[in-house]
Amino acid sequence: MPGKRILAAGKFDILHLGHLAYLEQARELAGVDGQLIVVIALDKTIEIERGAPPVFPAEQRRRLVEGLEVVDKAVLGYDTTDHTKIVSDLKPDIIALGYDQQTDIEALETAFREKNMTTKVVRLEKRDADGLCSSTLIRKRIIDFYNENGRPR
Amino acid sequence: MPGKRILAAGKFDILHLGHLAYLEQARELAGVDGQLIVVIALDKTIEIERGAPPVFPAEQRRRLVEGLEVVDKAVLGYDTTDHTKIVSDLKPDIIALGYDQQTDIEALETAFREKNMTTKVVRLEKRDADGLCSSTLIRKRIIDFYNENGRPR
Repeated sequence: MPGKRILAAGKFDILHLGHLAYLEQARELAGVDGQLIVVIALDKTIEIERGAPPVFPAEQRRRLVEGLEVVDKAVLGYDTTDHTKIVSDLKPDIIALGYDQQTDIEALETAFREKNMTTKVVRLEKRDADGLCSSTLIRKRIIDFYNENGRPR
Repeated sequence: MPGKRILAAGKFDILHLGHLAYLEQARELAGVDGQLIVVIALDKTIEIERGAPPVFPAEQRRRLVEGLEVVDKAVLGYDTTDHTKIVSDLKPDIIALGYDQQTDIEALETAFREKNMTTKVVRLEKRDADGLCSSTLIRKRIIDFYNENGRPR
């Protein structure tokens, strides 16, 4: 069976094991000669979604994610809410959504069909990655950490 | 020229491009069939040095660093200030120190010689990795970030 091109996406602001577990799982879908491409959310996309900018600028997040062994290529997202544009450029066989990514799969697949695109969308299962794997939890931990320990040293 | 076994070391608490630049530079010393092994500081070692524990536990830091393409293996540091022990177990040809790592190279090399170990110690140069590459600076940025934006969401 020939390898598949898999697309994963996210913010990847403070890289942690939850991100790695998600990307490893996405990479498994690709097969041996497949490919995992990761779309990195733009700073302004994060700002709109989260109400605050990321800690790390997009290009830094992109380079770090591309430095992971399971990732073949990481690219910056497009400045549009129309996800069909980047998908039609990157032509993945499968879009692998993390278990906690808020995306309307049906709406996405309908949009693809309307454009005669054959890309499938799958939602990955939650895997245990030994705790501390939600970005929100990590942020809370960082804040508690500084509240307890004062300014950084 | 046969590849060399290179040892790098650090805390790698919130992974960033400065870490990646350091490890990429260390990997270059290894040559094509060489090997890069990374020693991850124990939580208690960080606590002693920094006066506060890390955000991420050692095993999580280890797994994330080992997930980087340039890293062959990441291992936890030993619970001792005698660095000759882990070096004598891992048998690297070269220890690659980051430009900002506070280590007394002469004292280390003297200790190696006394134990008839041939490991060399080199200090890598500072490379431009597009800013935001000191952990202290990143922590400050995270704190400012939360001061501006309140609790995480």
